Amino acid sequence: MDKEYLKPLIEILKIRSVSMEDKYEAPMAEARSFLQKLLSSLGFETKILKGKKHDAVFAQKLDDSTLPTVLIYGHYDIQPPEPLGEWLSNPFSPTIRGKQLYARGATDNKGQFMIHVMAIKKLLKKNRHLPINVKFLIEGEEEIGSISIESLAQKYARSLFSCDYILVSDSGMFNKTTPSIDASLRGLVYEEVFFSTAKQDGHSGEFGGVAENPAIILSRVISKLKNGSNKVLIPGFYKNIVPPTTKELADFKKAKLTKQKIMDDGKLFLIGGGESEYSLNERAWARPTLDVNGITSGYQGEGSKTIIPAAASAKVSMRLVPNQDPVKISKAFKNYVSKLVPAGVKVRFVTHAMALPYKVPTDHPIFSLVKKSLETSFGREPVFTGVGGSIGFVPIVANTLKVPCIMVGFGLPDENFHAPNEHFSLDNYFRGIEAMADFYTNLAKIDK
Amino acid sequence: MDKEYLKPLIEILKIRSVSMEDKYEAPMAEARSFLQKLLSSLGFETKILKGKKHDAVFAQKLDDSTLPTVLIYGHYDIQPPEPLGEWLSNPFSPTIRGKQLYARGATDNKGQFMIHVMAIKKLLKKNRHLPINVKFLIEGEEEIGSISIESLAQKYARSLFSCDYILVSDSGMFNKTTPSIDASLRGLVYEEVFFSTAKQDGHSGEFGGVAENPAIILSRVISKLKNGSNKVLIPGFYKNIVPPTTKELADFKKAKLTKQKIMDDGKLFLIGGGESEYSLNERAWARPTLDVNGITSGYQGEGSKTIIPAAASAKVSMRLVPNQDPVKISKAFKNYVSKLVPAGVKVRFVTHAMALPYKVPTDHPIFSLVKKSLETSFGREPVFTGVGGSIGFVPIVANTLKVPCIMVGFGLPDENFHAPNEHFSLDNYFRGIEAMADFYTNLAKIDK
Repeated sequence: MDKEYLKPLIEILKIRSVSMEDKYEAPMAEARSFLQKLLSSLGFETKILKGKKHDAVFAQKLDDSTLPTVLIYGHYDIQPPEPLGEWLSNPFSPTIRGKQLYARGATDNKGQFMIHVMAIKKLLKKNRHLPINVKFLIEGEEEIGSISIESLAQKYARSLFSCDYILVSDSGMFNKTTPSIDASLRGLVYEEVFFSTAKQDGHSGEFGGVAENPAIILSRVISKLKNGSNKVLIPGFYKNIVPPTTKELADFKKAKLTKQKIMDDGKLFLIGGGESEYSLNERAWARPTLDVNGITSGYQGEGSKTIIPAAASAKVSMRLVPNQDPVKISKAFKNYVSKLVPAGVKVRFVTHAMALPYKVPTDHPIFSLVKKSLETSFGREPVFTGVGGSIGFVPIVANTLKVPCIMVGFGLPDENFHAPNEHFSLDNYFRGIEAMADFYTNLAKIDK
Repeated sequence: MDKEYLKPLIEILKIRSVSMEDKYEAPMAEARSFLQKLLSSLGFETKILKGKKHDAVFAQKLDDSTLPTVLIYGHYDIQPPEPLGEWLSNPFSPTIRGKQLYARGATDNKGQFMIHVMAIKKLLKKNRHLPINVKFLIEGEEEIGSISIESLAQKYARSLFSCDYILVSDSGMFNKTTPSIDASLRGLVYEEVFFSTAKQDGHSGEFGGVAENPAIILSRVISKLKNGSNKVLIPGFYKNIVPPTTKELADFKKAKLTKQKIMDDGKLFLIGGGESEYSLNERAWARPTLDVNGITSGYQGEGSKTIIPAAASAKVSMRLVPNQDPVKISKAFKNYVSKLVPAGVKVRFVTHAMALPYKVPTDHPIFSLVKKSLETSFGREPVFTGVGGSIGFVPIVANTLKVPCIMVGFGLPDENFHAPNEHFSLDNYFRGIEAMADFYTNLAKIDK
């Protein structure tokens, strides 16, 4: 059976559907047309939904209006493959080594949404009617902050997207043997700030002592974004935060997150960057963060160039928890940074992305069902974990439709998503297909 | 007369003699052979002096041992031309616009040492014997910190380099109409520091709150290198500094340096970066500095990539004044930075360059002579200024031979050396040739 469920995944992994850079426009279109063909062949009607930058693929197979409807979300866009030199095999030539499939997008998110497509394919082999109604929404802008999903959600929530359950697989299992269900999702504000102090770089001898140095100004600003204990210093940052309930914290605790596990997963040399008075679970899943994603200033080549740079810039992202408001935090960030900069420095901001945080109603009966299917396939009871990252679509649609979102991740924490040598466990791919086929079959049996 | 003195300059400006990157090895050799041919044609015997990375060109014409000997220093290596997009004409196709000659190296330093070569050529037109003995030392490693000059100076100070006066034109006139003589030269320590916190970049959602962020650590370190008043915080940094004398300060004051002039020269949007309790003259010429020359970390492309970088690095240079010791300061920098970094972060240092500071004995009688020649050619009395930058050769040879170094710069502060659209004033080029020919003629008349 393996081959027929593996081949479509390998085919889509060959497509360079990077959303972040304009040069990938053709492969982005190729990915959409691949998905339309694949889903049509399974009896879905498909539709392209206009995106600000890249269109989304929508598909539906509604066989019986008395059955529950599931809306499955995924994204066909991927992170850029750079740095290319660090890949052991070409990121767009999917390669199996051991029981892992290596390719950009293998786990984030092509491998994961293909689990659902293949689960449907599997069900259709037994019966030409599905036990539930199924909708797919596979967007192409997730890696650039899901910039169209809010308006799409508002436009289509009560028509195209109407459903009883949302299903998302865009996160990870807790570890190689323990499946997990995500109980929360962090939000996001992603800002970039540009400082310039001169029209051009100057000689560091001639202007040293009299010219402002934008790299130093930037460093000073960054050093004031968090204090030494990693408390974010932006006024109002922690306002309105709803902490996890005692039960949620107890659920998290069952997952037994350790420093060593995090260091192994991330290939980290040390643990840090968060608030030491909180547990690791909370720091990873339930506390807001602030990180610098990139800094650029001055001469970056080999050797030494004796310049004072004319400009410096940094990308700064913040992960948010319920009920932080991305819009307010974006504004507070800009206000705060502007005040830290000496008069005369030119300051410019770009907001790259925003996403709302989301908390799952884990007491809904659907969760015992999904737990059972996972336990059957994986042979171990799933734990509740949190997603440190953000999925822009989830909070918007779930809140609009007032339906629960079931987030079941099949990636593994060490599978290098967003990094070189991204890969996906083939065992988990096939177990995931089995578990989801089982879940969709059982879903039909509970009250809609 | 103009053309015959301009042509050799234009020829050498076409040569891409960038010392900083290996790909320019062939043009570096081409520049040396050009200089050997040119100086041979003027009756000099030439010799290549082995450098660690790029050889130096030495040449001498010793006509009469009873005459004083001048050793003229310059460098044929240039800064990289990047960013290329900002040049209005190709940096290696010398182009005259108005009365300016545009090319990489036009003012730093090809245009300036060629003034001396052409002054010799001019003197040789009148008489086949020169009124003095002349030696040229034109190195190819100035822009990479003059990495061989110390050992060359030690090896040849009392033989090849023995002289009565050193002459250097590798700095600037005070302004378009005011020639100047440099009374001091700052030293240099140029360090690079690399931090790494993980084997690879991580996802900022998954690891936010639990992974150290090297860009934030680097920013914190940089923010602790100077306090808010731009006092360098490295222990021992200001130790042993010999401040300028009252006479030296009074000389500097005559130059009437203003904030507006500095901002115009550097195309700066604001003044800053130095110690506000010192005068502008002191901050520019007589106080030590610390600047960040470049920072690199994480994602620097367009848009947003949600990573926590695995590494961050910064190039940091310090300009030194008498009697700061570059070796001690390099060590103090490394010690200080190492202590600011959390345990577990991997830290690596590279020292790119060191140069000693130098103070000119401006009461030596030679200075009234050079002042007179400059005043005759330029029609205005020269002022004493300082060089904010560093010339590695000067302090070493001047101190070893105990001879004065005459630093007469012909560049203008707004001629974009080390920046795009570097250019040189042709008026100053021809006036410089005239002044130096006059100076060399008069020099023969004073006691050796």
